[in-house]
Amino acid sequence: MDQLTLMRDLSVPGKSKMVLVVMDGVGGLPGPDGLTELEAAHTPNLDALAARSITGLSTPVRPGITPGSGPGHIGLFGYEPTEWEIGRGVLEALGIDFDLGPNDIAARGNFATVDEAGNILDRRAGRIPTEEGERLVERLRQIALPGVETFVRVVKEYRFVLVLRGEKLEDGLTETDPQRTGVPPLPVEATRPEAEETAELINQWLEEARELLADEPKANSMNLRGIAKVPPIPKMNEIYKLSLGAIATYPMYRGIGRLVGMSVLQTGETIESEVETLKQHWSDHDFFFFHVKKTDSYGEDGNFEAKVHVIEEFDSALPAILELNPGVVLVSGDHSTPWSLKSHSWHELPVMLWSDHIRPDAVTVFGERPCMGGGLGHIRHVDFLPLMMAHAGRLMKFGA
Amino acid sequence: MDQLTLMRDLSVPGKSKMVLVVMDGVGGLPGPDGLTELEAAHTPNLDALAARSITGLSTPVRPGITPGSGPGHIGLFGYEPTEWEIGRGVLEALGIDFDLGPNDIAARGNFATVDEAGNILDRRAGRIPTEEGERLVERLRQIALPGVETFVRVVKEYRFVLVLRGEKLEDGLTETDPQRTGVPPLPVEATRPEAEETAELINQWLEEARELLADEPKANSMNLRGIAKVPPIPKMNEIYKLSLGAIATYPMYRGIGRLVGMSVLQTGETIESEVETLKQHWSDHDFFFFHVKKTDSYGEDGNFEAKVHVIEEFDSALPAILELNPGVVLVSGDHSTPWSLKSHSWHELPVMLWSDHIRPDAVTVFGERPCMGGGLGHIRHVDFLPLMMAHAGRLMKFGA
Repeated sequence: MDQLTLMRDLSVPGKSKMVLVVMDGVGGLPGPDGLTELEAAHTPNLDALAARSITGLSTPVRPGITPGSGPGHIGLFGYEPTEWEIGRGVLEALGIDFDLGPNDIAARGNFATVDEAGNILDRRAGRIPTEEGERLVERLRQIALPGVETFVRVVKEYRFVLVLRGEKLEDGLTETDPQRTGVPPLPVEATRPEAEETAELINQWLEEARELLADEPKANSMNLRGIAKVPPIPKMNEIYKLSLGAIATYPMYRGIGRLVGMSVLQTGETIESEVETLKQHWSDHDFFFFHVKKTDSYGEDGNFEAKVHVIEEFDSALPAILELNPGVVLVSGDHSTPWSLKSHSWHELPVMLWSDHIRPDAVTVFGERPCMGGGLGHIRHVDFLPLMMAHAGRLMKFGA
Repeated sequence: MDQLTLMRDLSVPGKSKMVLVVMDGVGGLPGPDGLTELEAAHTPNLDALAARSITGLSTPVRPGITPGSGPGHIGLFGYEPTEWEIGRGVLEALGIDFDLGPNDIAARGNFATVDEAGNILDRRAGRIPTEEGERLVERLRQIALPGVETFVRVVKEYRFVLVLRGEKLEDGLTETDPQRTGVPPLPVEATRPEAEETAELINQWLEEARELLADEPKANSMNLRGIAKVPPIPKMNEIYKLSLGAIATYPMYRGIGRLVGMSVLQTGETIESEVETLKQHWSDHDFFFFHVKKTDSYGEDGNFEAKVHVIEEFDSALPAILELNPGVVLVSGDHSTPWSLKSHSWHELPVMLWSDHIRPDAVTVFGERPCMGGGLGHIRHVDFLPLMMAHAGRLMKFGA
């Protein structure tokens, strides 16, 4: 039986509140002193919680697989990441706080430079500045398609989002980017017959867009990637019979939360303001997704010290979260972002689970190496939700 | 490839005898001194065996899932619990030692009180005493259905079992219990066309039963739940080419054993008498399922001390089992029943496996926390049978 079906069958309402803390990209690799970012950080509060918790290591997708932000989070929320894929276009739209509906098709757009024959010279249009992108997007807004609403939004530099909204839109569409220069962009093609009409509409949009920008010195063409609908993902609030709140400083994480049935809670730019938001909404929801972004950002920068500092900043905020008296707390990350790789990685994530009903293990320090000996052993991100629900007393017995 | 297919293909007869000890609900949570029931118990014999064994922790179904007795045991016997579900009616019939056949449909019956309009006033008929139930069941035995044999047996208080026996009976039937008062019982409905005739027969039985009991002050109606056939589960004796004996003091566990192809061995009420039974039948079978019930019962009562005492009682009996010179011994439980939760739980079970061919780990105490560091790591109940068979030298090589 499928895990979501099982969860839907067994979950019951309850009173115990749950907090899922996601330090984005928290998992690391040894630094100058042989310690990882998390191990090097001074974290008395995380360590004290670890001493009362059961700990372990978790694989986001499968051994050796490096997840993007989409699969990393989808797994944390109890969905098998290889089963529920979120298109690049959808993630890009969520990343600019665009409120995608179930009938929307979203694509990531990249402005490009083509020569007179229409062959690509530069797939990023000379990395034009964002203001330039804004001006171009403004021009593209005049394109009207029959029976369909279109939205064009700048993301950053040469990147934009195109959203088509209409009842009859279908996905199953190829990308236009040939991934090399010297050849023209590809037409959008339908990979299933139902999507043919949509492919035609998008090709029509592309034709008009290229005509409109033909006189541009750099961005005289564009490619569309990851053209997809929001997947028909069952909502967490329905599966688990929960009211869920998402607290995140970056739009993409708020967007993924909204996608899976969470209420997005207005918050500020700092961990401190996120804790304030948690306090304000404590009585409104059963489950809180609490996202810390900058661990990942500094990991991507290769900045060991700054990543350590963000972890320490969260550590200082932890007591205020615990003072709210949650019934279940799980602390982990969506994926590792080791400073030495400057990118997401496949490495397991340390995880700790606290509730009144855990068997505390011998681990007293929250770090990658200590957690290797933790009582949870090696689990997977998709196990987090069932474990949290069980410890919250919100799952019935399976079978008589 | 499916595990059962693999086992069927690879298993060969052999001489080494296997004992699977199931301390029902043995897994626990920390008690007054921070130790679990098993950790607090004085168990020199279990600990000595652990020191010679490989140990670990096992998940009965999946992380976070609390199994009923059916799924807990089915997993121990090597069947994927979410794939082979045993209906509530079947378990209830097994629980009164009723010998269900492959063409039987079993239902759990609950006597209920209804008002003049037929709406339910009490779903348990005022919890009438068992003797009262016996008298009512006697009256219901006069109902005859065309082409079908019927059996009605009292279980306890307001609970009874209805079994229909006939060649053309089909399951895929809904329950009649609306799970609330103020409304009438529901009719039985077929969830697939083949079951329509069976649904009609059961509705006919219900109509006559309610007429017969119309003058009863309390139990003037009834509901049927978990109306199902024995699942067409492949038998362990055929899959593993074994002769298996089941030793259990409670009928339900004997019944599950019989269901999967074990011979039920007559035994007494105590662990001591179960060991006597094992001795008497030692030469008759290859594999023994040895079930200790009271660990679970005291866990359900929330009685820490009494659960500790049952574990110590089993510990005293262990040497007599080992003196029989088994080739493989596995000690674990079907699920946890922590004293502090007073119910089954999702927590992993400690497990130890002994044979001449194991790699002993460093664990010298049989308990939840010591087993966190065991050499088996974290396994699943369905892994027990393949591991026991392998250590008994009863599995051929897979592939050339």
